Amino acid sequence: MSKSAVTPRLEAIRYSRGSLSILDQLKLPHSSEFITIANCAQAAEAIKSMQVRGAPAIAVTAVLSLAVELPSMVEKSADLKMFVRMIDDRLEVLGNSRPTAVNLFEAIGRIKKILSQATAQPGNNSNPIQNLSSTLVNFAEGMLEKDISDNRAIGSYGADLFKGKSKIKILTHCNTGSLATVGYGTALGVIRALHERGQLEHAFATETRPYNQGARLTAFELVYEKIPATLITDSMASFLMKQEKIDAVIVGADRVVANGDTANKIGTYQLAIAAKHHGIPFYVAAPLTSIDISKSSGDDIHIEQRPANELTHIFGQRLAAEGIEVWNPSFDVTPAELISGIITEHGVVLPELSQNCFDLPAFLKGVAGK
Amino acid sequence: MSKSAVTPRLEAIRYSRGSLSILDQLKLPHSSEFITIANCAQAAEAIKSMQVRGAPAIAVTAVLSLAVELPSMVEKSADLKMFVRMIDDRLEVLGNSRPTAVNLFEAIGRIKKILSQATAQPGNNSNPIQNLSSTLVNFAEGMLEKDISDNRAIGSYGADLFKGKSKIKILTHCNTGSLATVGYGTALGVIRALHERGQLEHAFATETRPYNQGARLTAFELVYEKIPATLITDSMASFLMKQEKIDAVIVGADRVVANGDTANKIGTYQLAIAAKHHGIPFYVAAPLTSIDISKSSGDDIHIEQRPANELTHIFGQRLAAEGIEVWNPSFDVTPAELISGIITEHGVVLPELSQNCFDLPAFLKGVAGK
Repeated sequence: MSKSAVTPRLEAIRYSRGSLSILDQLKLPHSSEFITIANCAQAAEAIKSMQVRGAPAIAVTAVLSLAVELPSMVEKSADLKMFVRMIDDRLEVLGNSRPTAVNLFEAIGRIKKILSQATAQPGNNSNPIQNLSSTLVNFAEGMLEKDISDNRAIGSYGADLFKGKSKIKILTHCNTGSLATVGYGTALGVIRALHERGQLEHAFATETRPYNQGARLTAFELVYEKIPATLITDSMASFLMKQEKIDAVIVGADRVVANGDTANKIGTYQLAIAAKHHGIPFYVAAPLTSIDISKSSGDDIHIEQRPANELTHIFGQRLAAEGIEVWNPSFDVTPAELISGIITEHGVVLPELSQNCFDLPAFLKGVAGK
Repeated sequence: MSKSAVTPRLEAIRYSRGSLSILDQLKLPHSSEFITIANCAQAAEAIKSMQVRGAPAIAVTAVLSLAVELPSMVEKSADLKMFVRMIDDRLEVLGNSRPTAVNLFEAIGRIKKILSQATAQPGNNSNPIQNLSSTLVNFAEGMLEKDISDNRAIGSYGADLFKGKSKIKILTHCNTGSLATVGYGTALGVIRALHERGQLEHAFATETRPYNQGARLTAFELVYEKIPATLITDSMASFLMKQEKIDAVIVGADRVVANGDTANKIGTYQLAIAAKHHGIPFYVAAPLTSIDISKSSGDDIHIEQRPANELTHIFGQRLAAEGIEVWNPSFDVTPAELISGIITEHGVVLPELSQNCFDLPAFLKGVAGK
């Protein structure tokens, strides 16, 4: 595996076989410093302290940390049983780093399956330790490649929506780029693809209150990649649409349910309304893993409240008047009727025009049947 | 003049004859400290350093500082000419404090007219110095009273829009209260009036990026007056309208032009679109001094850009990634067709239904003819 194949343009995770380092996101946007991750314990620490964030990035960092630690464990292992026990210990350390990280637990589960398969049929191999080690390294590198290729596909399908057009201006919200995923990004991946194809004139990024992912992370990525871009407050989006010819709004998704209703970062719903008012297409970019057809509509999505101090404080200092109540929903739900299309790694899903919503179960069935 | 008559509920300006102090707005919301203003030089310093802000509050502070300094100037004056020269010196100091403050210059102009009238007819008075001093004190106190009574009238006319209704929920934007005006506020004055009448269930205030007037000042006023209130980010307004029964959005105005198009704090336009999408009335509360019929529509309003560091920095610390471009328009323009009514101290102006806009020249003519 060549280094260039697995290194995203903005290298939030730098990996080549035997070597892993991650961009310390706690230091962004002030400085971009890489931390070497030589083993699972160091990865667990980086995850705990939020030096790496975003569900896919956490999972990939964890499995890659195992991959880089494996050679030293191979050396120390007297037999396969000992090797597997050492790996199990590492998985426990990784699993304790962030108890709610679903992607991480899914990855750990898949590694455990590989371990039990290896211990069940050790006799087939002349060098079972080395073989298991290779399988795990391939698994880890495969996860990294899958994330990047899925993001690339989303970027490509999204950019295809603008075929034949040039000087395109896109507005996006929150951070959906190399810092949230592993590779190319989802909504920001579409912007990257349009930029690569020479079709993008300008990207606009909302600062994304209250946690400022747009100002801190998206702006960082856009500057880093020299994509012409402008930061606005969330409240300026509508006025921007009136003053500039915005070709589309593209956002990511926390979760897309069966009819296309989309839970995403607070403020997404308001952008969708503003886009509709100005006749601007509004797209959601999301991998299939974000589609949850177990829920039929957005009404089934529970909205949690986040801590008040995200609004009342910044840099540890009080910004808002003492004693004021705060409403801080973790995300909002954009109804399907405001969404022009859902961009996935298997193509763009368009709404059922007769029903003003999407049929995502049918789409997933079609993908599975390919 | 009794103290209670001129002291607003939240005392941003404390005045009784011979004594003036102002709330130091630079210390808000962390502490509410009053600074004594004993003369014009101190007022000019307070204006320069933004301890007092808001065009009407600046003008009233300036003329009241002259009123409290007059007695000592009367004592020192050998004759009327010397007295007038001393006042002129003070006016120059005040005028240099904030070169762009229109209301301040208008007030200074009116004082100069009083001075030239007094010097033109000194013979009519047995005590011309004392008489001029009294005229100026009455002028200053009159300005204070007019601001307060106009705000009260706006609050009252605004609250009348909700006659017979109870448990009302209002969303507002930016700061339009006792801290921006002198007295009761414009949009926040309507909220105060509804609260006094027992009709208000809850007020919602946007934090109002990028300068956070909602979080810092409106939240402070609402907490201070024990009005049940919740702070939200600007991006949450639409989702709030979906989750809660919001009865109206009420905002202030920087300038309302002839057809009703309204320039106001950035984000106002987006709120108006969100209100329309949810079928919620959207009102502008503004005194006649904010109505500018010299411009026929919002297209004639020039939009200035404010400094980028309002978005990129907070508390002097960099928040946004270095190198990102910033768009920071000073305000936006809400078209008349999104406005349900304009609440003035002379009543509520409703749109001409046939034209989807307002006829403010006709309204002003009607007021003048009363």
